[in-house]
Amino acid sequence: MPLVLGIDVGGTKIAFSLAEADGTIRARDRRPTECSGNAADDLDRIAGDVQRLLEQAGVAPKDLAGVGVSLPGPLDLEQGLVLSPPNLPGWDRAPVRDHLADALGVPVHIENDANAAALAEWRFGAGRGARHVVYLTCSTGMGGGLVLGGRVHQGVAASAGEVGHMPIEWEGERCFCGLDGCLEAYVGGRAWTKRLQAITPPSSRVAALAGSPAEARPEHVVEAAREGDAFALGEMERFNDYLARGIVNLVFVLAPEVFVLGTIAVAAGEELCLGPVREKVRAHVWPFLAEGLRIVPAELGARMADYAGVVVALAELERS
Amino acid sequence: MPLVLGIDVGGTKIAFSLAEADGTIRARDRRPTECSGNAADDLDRIAGDVQRLLEQAGVAPKDLAGVGVSLPGPLDLEQGLVLSPPNLPGWDRAPVRDHLADALGVPVHIENDANAAALAEWRFGAGRGARHVVYLTCSTGMGGGLVLGGRVHQGVAASAGEVGHMPIEWEGERCFCGLDGCLEAYVGGRAWTKRLQAITPPSSRVAALAGSPAEARPEHVVEAAREGDAFALGEMERFNDYLARGIVNLVFVLAPEVFVLGTIAVAAGEELCLGPVREKVRAHVWPFLAEGLRIVPAELGARMADYAGVVVALAELERS
Repeated sequence: MPLVLGIDVGGTKIAFSLAEADGTIRARDRRPTECSGNAADDLDRIAGDVQRLLEQAGVAPKDLAGVGVSLPGPLDLEQGLVLSPPNLPGWDRAPVRDHLADALGVPVHIENDANAAALAEWRFGAGRGARHVVYLTCSTGMGGGLVLGGRVHQGVAASAGEVGHMPIEWEGERCFCGLDGCLEAYVGGRAWTKRLQAITPPSSRVAALAGSPAEARPEHVVEAAREGDAFALGEMERFNDYLARGIVNLVFVLAPEVFVLGTIAVAAGEELCLGPVREKVRAHVWPFLAEGLRIVPAELGARMADYAGVVVALAELERS
Repeated sequence: MPLVLGIDVGGTKIAFSLAEADGTIRARDRRPTECSGNAADDLDRIAGDVQRLLEQAGVAPKDLAGVGVSLPGPLDLEQGLVLSPPNLPGWDRAPVRDHLADALGVPVHIENDANAAALAEWRFGAGRGARHVVYLTCSTGMGGGLVLGGRVHQGVAASAGEVGHMPIEWEGERCFCGLDGCLEAYVGGRAWTKRLQAITPPSSRVAALAGSPAEARPEHVVEAAREGDAFALGEMERFNDYLARGIVNLVFVLAPEVFVLGTIAVAAGEELCLGPVREKVRAHVWPFLAEGLRIVPAELGARMADYAGVVVALAELERS
């Protein structure tokens, strides 16, 4: 069975994993990202970490069928660059693909983290067995990845799946991206936090959990909603409503079998989020489309870091 | 070069064409659809027409690399059936694929007409050379076809690309499909006609061209707008605005290179429709996405009937 090496480069941690094609992890390592400000040095250090991991596992680089790297987007896939990643200082236009391929002597492929997460949930997580999977995550912003017919749909400039910027209210709330009415301006973590810090009633449970309204965050809403706080329940309702609108749009465009929801949906769970979202979606799509549609929480959680790079390498193996 | 046979089954006409893989039409025929009420009889007649066309061209069925059929959707692609086509009486659940394959002794593939049109514009029309093309048409309803990476994305139950039912105004105008706020309820021909017949001012040029407000139709709006009629110009502005909203949604989901617009956009042309739509889209997407994006009129027009079936056969050849 071919061996692949996955690298998941995050803003705070880098994860390395050596895996078989069926997802069996043969060796793994994680360390803080610690950007030096010089991408070439950082990439050399990453290549060194990979070589050490391979040595420990008794595997030569030439025995790898490929290396996959998951990176915070946007990327220039043709040239194999990462473009202005906000959490990787010094990495603007860093030639991640070619630098690592040269250092390791193995073909390297890169993918943005939302697409890599979509591939990972499709292959090893909540989207297993489906042909068409949409992965949605509302962390800081709102990201998405589309696996259609078992392949990531990347679109022009690898910018497909930017579903957080569908105009969900025409000329509505200003989004951090500069456009108005984007879905992310309603359900993205940063936008929701800004709203909460402006409108949380001092008497609400959200304020009590946060310390003050000015420190309120979505996780406090989830916790307070679980305790039955009225303000928090209203905020969850609003979140679910906008998320459902986005999903309905995507049902009619893509007709996927599965939506895999990450972050807030996972934290809030069935009762506060997934159940209500399913119901709202069902009420706004045709019955035959609602019938087979699955809207499920992401499954991989902390294991995502083990798989994000691995699935990029596996996808490339199948393409060729 | 392989030869394929295309059949375009429309509500009023059926077109047959024998073509080479590069689109060269070697022989063609058209006739009224004339459903008998019995699909088996109608399909036998179609098979007979194909055999006659092949004989005249000196080609044996066994020399065909495949047969493609474009049909009004929805279809059951797995079983090769057409499902409740409104304009083909007697054809509900007709086994188009297997009936024709048995009669002709050649593999037959079917596709719904919007997807077939998308493939045709991608291969031989306004989308030539692009990898990702979205085809949109506002005739009676609003249809769409997605060619992603050179293949139709069909989705579950072949219902991807139903972009006319994206909720463009949440809980807005009732659509003929039963849902509320669908894009089609604003830009579909049937919905727009209903609106026009209710609100056209008797004094407007639209009413004069139509005979009366109760006979007003989108084509009268296009004509009156060209003459500068204020009511008609307002209606075009509304149409363009909603069409642009739909396109902006699709840019962020799919990041295609080209939108190919059919029917009303073709009739209304650059000044009344395409130019304003382009401007509205540009104002609502990120500059780097707007930069390379092409929004162009469909090119095939009446030649669509020659290609709609042919491209379905060619797509299947490339898949296998």
